[in-house]
Amino acid sequence: MKEMEPFNLLVSHEEAEEIILSKIQPIDRTESVTLSDAVNRVLSEDIIADSSVPPFDRAAMDGYAVIAEDTYDAGDREVLLELDGVIHAGEVSDIEITRGHCIQIATGSPKPSGADAVVMVEYTEKQGNRVLITRPVYPGANISKLGEDIKKGDVVLPRGVFLTPAKIGAIAALGRTKVEVYQKPKVSVIATGTEIVQPGEPLHPGQIYDVNSFTLEAILKKNGADVQRYPVITDDPKQLRNGIESALEADIVVLSGGSSVGERDLLAGILEDMGQVLFHGVQIKPGKPTLFGTIRGKAVFGMPGFPTSCLSNAHIFLVPAIRKMARLPSNPERTIIAKMGKRIVSSSGRKQFLTVRLENGNAYPAFKHSGAITSMAQADGYVMLPVNLDVIEEGEEIEVILLN
Amino acid sequence: MKEMEPFNLLVSHEEAEEIILSKIQPIDRTESVTLSDAVNRVLSEDIIADSSVPPFDRAAMDGYAVIAEDTYDAGDREVLLELDGVIHAGEVSDIEITRGHCIQIATGSPKPSGADAVVMVEYTEKQGNRVLITRPVYPGANISKLGEDIKKGDVVLPRGVFLTPAKIGAIAALGRTKVEVYQKPKVSVIATGTEIVQPGEPLHPGQIYDVNSFTLEAILKKNGADVQRYPVITDDPKQLRNGIESALEADIVVLSGGSSVGERDLLAGILEDMGQVLFHGVQIKPGKPTLFGTIRGKAVFGMPGFPTSCLSNAHIFLVPAIRKMARLPSNPERTIIAKMGKRIVSSSGRKQFLTVRLENGNAYPAFKHSGAITSMAQADGYVMLPVNLDVIEEGEEIEVILLN
Repeated sequence: MKEMEPFNLLVSHEEAEEIILSKIQPIDRTESVTLSDAVNRVLSEDIIADSSVPPFDRAAMDGYAVIAEDTYDAGDREVLLELDGVIHAGEVSDIEITRGHCIQIATGSPKPSGADAVVMVEYTEKQGNRVLITRPVYPGANISKLGEDIKKGDVVLPRGVFLTPAKIGAIAALGRTKVEVYQKPKVSVIATGTEIVQPGEPLHPGQIYDVNSFTLEAILKKNGADVQRYPVITDDPKQLRNGIESALEADIVVLSGGSSVGERDLLAGILEDMGQVLFHGVQIKPGKPTLFGTIRGKAVFGMPGFPTSCLSNAHIFLVPAIRKMARLPSNPERTIIAKMGKRIVSSSGRKQFLTVRLENGNAYPAFKHSGAITSMAQADGYVMLPVNLDVIEEGEEIEVILLN
Repeated sequence: MKEMEPFNLLVSHEEAEEIILSKIQPIDRTESVTLSDAVNRVLSEDIIADSSVPPFDRAAMDGYAVIAEDTYDAGDREVLLELDGVIHAGEVSDIEITRGHCIQIATGSPKPSGADAVVMVEYTEKQGNRVLITRPVYPGANISKLGEDIKKGDVVLPRGVFLTPAKIGAIAALGRTKVEVYQKPKVSVIATGTEIVQPGEPLHPGQIYDVNSFTLEAILKKNGADVQRYPVITDDPKQLRNGIESALEADIVVLSGGSSVGERDLLAGILEDMGQVLFHGVQIKPGKPTLFGTIRGKAVFGMPGFPTSCLSNAHIFLVPAIRKMARLPSNPERTIIAKMGKRIVSSSGRKQFLTVRLENGNAYPAFKHSGAITSMAQADGYVMLPVNLDVIEEGEEIEVILLN
């Protein structure tokens, strides 16, 4: 009936996510990085211990290396041991401990032969060349055994783990300086629109500055992507096609713009021609005009042109996709429970991404307009309202996903 | 009574934190970064709008720019308007809309003079050179007013805010390409210990690899610091003093090692001599042998030498300090509620940092020994057990802070 049918492949949030994730393959390319650069990366090799940690039996406490049996009566009668010397950290002693003797030992030093325990300094008293032991120890007390932490041959960390500071420490403990990690997915980001101007350039009447390239670049970088931001492309089929062609050197192409029907159709047409359109329009508010497809097996996102729509859909669709590709753990979002500070009526018949400000544990709508970047920039978080929700009463508890 | 008194300034966790934070001043140095590098940084200037966004009244929808009054009877009777042309995005039209006329307009295009509303394309039907309007609109409908998003002169973002993707978008919207941010705090990290060897070097008997420099570097970087990792220093007073002296070019100096009484005393003596010791030993397990002081107003941390103690105290003390200095929002940790999978008896009389593995919503202790890096590297999170807690029963609910 209508002359222009603006959306012909409208899918639900869940369908859209399923379609997207089905087209995203985790990165297989790897690279070698230094331990200093390994934090927040994903291991692409099994880390197998080629030596044991600790590499020798060592004192776990400062004190005296002894033969435990010599100390069993300590506390009941006076146990005095001959002091044969001292072992500082980093030193190896060739003294062999025999019955009735001991040696002073620093935490971390190799246990001398003959000794089978360390008495903590707190339970001793030095008397000239002898040491009074005030508490007994059992064999093995205060000694870290060779391989107690890591055994030679152990898989210390399996491929695929996310490298936290502690995990990097475990690799350093083996003496490694470099590690193999999965490469970051490469993403090309292109803003389109004849009215869009690169920040820094003069603005002529009818023009506005590109916001989306910068918000997309930032959110993609935060989620493990290597981002190449391209210059703005006008709504010209030839230029768009050329732009997409060179952007395809990346693993994923993310275009923004084309928020008007004509531009949307232009991009959809090119995508259909170069590859395939998998959906065109999502039952979500804001952010309905989202386009997704593939060209030569690579995912191509056509994000809405309006800044808030673009960025909210980046949170919803792009972040899970890029994290899957980067092999990062999913859903790193922090949520809090807040009370709705104001009654909300939702009648969109679409799932809604509602930005909120937080004040004293209350959440107030921050949404102005999907064209307004401040809807998002001045929000603390957002709430996902289900399709069939009509009203949230003031004071009702809601889960707020924090924006950061 | 004892010959060696290992800790003479033992403070509680809370006291230690208070002492540390009282010596940490937020960074005042600033630098200019591109918008591409601004994510996760902290703004050091007020962003004041030198122009309005949008810079003109514009169509918020695809449709037809009209005089609203012409549409009031739409739906009741046939309202047909003369089509005077089309305005694409980025174009400015000099056509003035008069009664009975309209112009086709794309989302984002400047509203032509005379028009005061846009009828969405969905509620129209093009009939040759005329357009049938099927629903009335009120004046201002589907028009974004000049300055609706950002008004010229507004403080769009105040100094001190953490730059999220959306906030970077708001700066781009003003046409800025660079932004002033606070510099990252500079931190010098030095591992000490005669037995400690840099990874990559051969390991001789009695030696172990440096773990702490790498875990400290990683956790500091994750929390907004600019880290300079120094070569390992042996337990020689002159070398330690020289090392600390050059490390003081940074804002904070973090030493690790000195886990044995002799080494601890060495570092404490140097710190006392060059500056002042503020505490030496914390009632926390693991991590008791932590030293803190200042030299020429700069904070100096002496972290325990044992890898798990060093890193757990970095979580507890170093992260809040560095985030305060970097002006980052505090406590970015994610927590979950889990059930203790095994009965825990805690009898340390100290607050305890207990690492746990998570399996099916149950938390199992992952702690082996404070000398074992795997206590932390193979844990999913940790639980802070209060000083006076004796037992956690199996099945009891606990809050786990996730390690990432």
